Amino acid sequence: MKFFVEKSELQEAISKVQKAITNKTTMPILEGILIKAENNKLILIGSNTELTIETKINADVIEDGSIVIESKLFGEIIKKLPNSQIEIHSIDDNSINIKCLKSTATFIHMDAADYPKTPQINENMIFSIPQKLLKNMIKGTIFAIAQDETRPILTGVLFQVKNKKLNLVALDGYRVAVRTENIDNDNVINAVIPGKTLNEVAKILEESDEPVHITFTPNHILFNLGNTKVLSILLKGEFIKYESIIPNEYNLKAIVKKNEILNSIEIASLIGKEGSNNLVKLDIKDDTIIVTSNSQLGTVREEVNIILQGESVKIAFNSKYLIDVFKIMEEEEIVMEFSSSISPCVVKNKENDNCTYLLLPVRLANNN
Amino acid sequence: MKFFVEKSELQEAISKVQKAITNKTTMPILEGILIKAENNKLILIGSNTELTIETKINADVIEDGSIVIESKLFGEIIKKLPNSQIEIHSIDDNSINIKCLKSTATFIHMDAADYPKTPQINENMIFSIPQKLLKNMIKGTIFAIAQDETRPILTGVLFQVKNKKLNLVALDGYRVAVRTENIDNDNVINAVIPGKTLNEVAKILEESDEPVHITFTPNHILFNLGNTKVLSILLKGEFIKYESIIPNEYNLKAIVKKNEILNSIEIASLIGKEGSNNLVKLDIKDDTIIVTSNSQLGTVREEVNIILQGESVKIAFNSKYLIDVFKIMEEEEIVMEFSSSISPCVVKNKENDNCTYLLLPVRLANNN
Repeated sequence: MKFFVEKSELQEAISKVQKAITNKTTMPILEGILIKAENNKLILIGSNTELTIETKINADVIEDGSIVIESKLFGEIIKKLPNSQIEIHSIDDNSINIKCLKSTATFIHMDAADYPKTPQINENMIFSIPQKLLKNMIKGTIFAIAQDETRPILTGVLFQVKNKKLNLVALDGYRVAVRTENIDNDNVINAVIPGKTLNEVAKILEESDEPVHITFTPNHILFNLGNTKVLSILLKGEFIKYESIIPNEYNLKAIVKKNEILNSIEIASLIGKEGSNNLVKLDIKDDTIIVTSNSQLGTVREEVNIILQGESVKIAFNSKYLIDVFKIMEEEEIVMEFSSSISPCVVKNKENDNCTYLLLPVRLANNN
Repeated sequence: MKFFVEKSELQEAISKVQKAITNKTTMPILEGILIKAENNKLILIGSNTELTIETKINADVIEDGSIVIESKLFGEIIKKLPNSQIEIHSIDDNSINIKCLKSTATFIHMDAADYPKTPQINENMIFSIPQKLLKNMIKGTIFAIAQDETRPILTGVLFQVKNKKLNLVALDGYRVAVRTENIDNDNVINAVIPGKTLNEVAKILEESDEPVHITFTPNHILFNLGNTKVLSILLKGEFIKYESIIPNEYNLKAIVKKNEILNSIEIASLIGKEGSNNLVKLDIKDDTIIVTSNSQLGTVREEVNIILQGESVKIAFNSKYLIDVFKIMEEEEIVMEFSSSISPCVVKNKENDNCTYLLLPVRLANNN
């Protein structure tokens, strides 16, 4: 094997495939990056069996070949080399030489034949969506996945294709997050992607209008970004029928400036942290939300102006859940819908109907 | 007590005095900030008994008074309040009310009478030095203090005033760091400041030519920055006579581009980390330093061009010690002086004679 490659391109490719490489693997070869040099391309692959990332870059390949090289040290060395062309060539069956200007390194490597085969996916059931849109949809839902493993399916995000729409849905028993975009596809699909791997997918997706092409198989989802492909397993099992949980009616609708309510909840949450359950109380009436919290150290009271339609209500929440939602929402004006102090609250953008968040309140004793 | 104060000024003052407040105190009152309102000033004090920081800001004081308020929560709340005027006033003997636009908070506070008295220092034996200069001198030495407590005096930095010079000196048995500046003072002083407190002093010093006035007493050093005063205890005991350790002669002098040697040592250290003692070897001859390192994973070889005067030498170091020094030095061209493979190396700036670093080599078996 012998090739020349630009340092910056190799560094970027390493950093992409490293997102699939974990230290806690029982297969030492998966701590390595598989590098294939052929047809004037380098193909780099990183995998932890659940998630596999493959990326292709240009190289001047003098002699084809494949190796597996320990990912961490290789990545650190390449990163530190000067911005110039790097030459990599085999010295013998188990070591390579790396040259870059006045730097030279030799490395022991592993045998490419021992690297697990990547499942072959037939890229036929495809729809496409701009990368930045999917990135936002993931960020807008993934925070609401279940953190514990009691119901493993809830540690994933549902990708639902239905009525020419893509819905991403996460829920953990206390809240539901739904993001929706139109897509040009008539299929009906329900697939649940593990939150852990989806997090890494979100990091690889770029803030660009370039499309990502998506293929589903019974066991996998494939994200094709052009030169980079990301393959994740799906979680097995039935997702919760989330549509029936979200109420369509309300008794109170408040239009709120998102940053104002976020800041008020954050102030109130500081003192609420001292108490038991991050409790903040909202007293909604007369075009105002009064946010209060208290602990043995003191009390906080915040006023937020709103536009109110309907009845007034007093309701309490775990402040963390409100903060998570307000932080991720994109519009400055949002709508909060309430029915009673013991019914869930629904939060949406005022303009764009592309997200729905549902939050369960904390039930208070009557005298609160 | 009642006063009005600008949020940004109060926030900055809190963040300054918090540098002296530790969570691990056996005196709960020291988790608080002492706030005194008098003469249209607020004085804030934070202390951990070894280090005390006092800062003064303008306020519109309607009614004098003193309280001690739990530092962490108070700081977090003030930080989150809008950029506007804050009103703080006593409600009763043990609580205050904080108002800022539409935010209101009430806090339990502690009794100012219970706060330990700060030692009164007579500010008479004073010299002054620009803040940014002292900040650089501290940063340029403090990394070399001893990390273990076997010889407590070495966990501090020596402030030595002698021959109209201020020398800061730190050493840990493997290396010595000396920074020197001229000052206008004829006294002879040797005082050792604990590294922990000096770190906080460096954070408070600004990148400015404004002076810091320094007073020594037998047990304390006082840094007076105008509105802020920092008082630290001194370490007891005799510092090592560092002057006799630093050799004045050498057999080899190399003029080196600092960033080139730093980068080469960093690359070599990546692979050296896998081995036993972060070892890097320098082979200095023919206007080149060849930097090598190796481990069971591979080897690295780097070439650095230098200007060499004198004999050639092969010598090995713990890479961390070289990196620490090169990272902190300010000139692009530096001088490295060697005598033999088992003698210390002395590193200086090429132009400005304001620093001297000494590094002990690692002794190698002959066949290396």
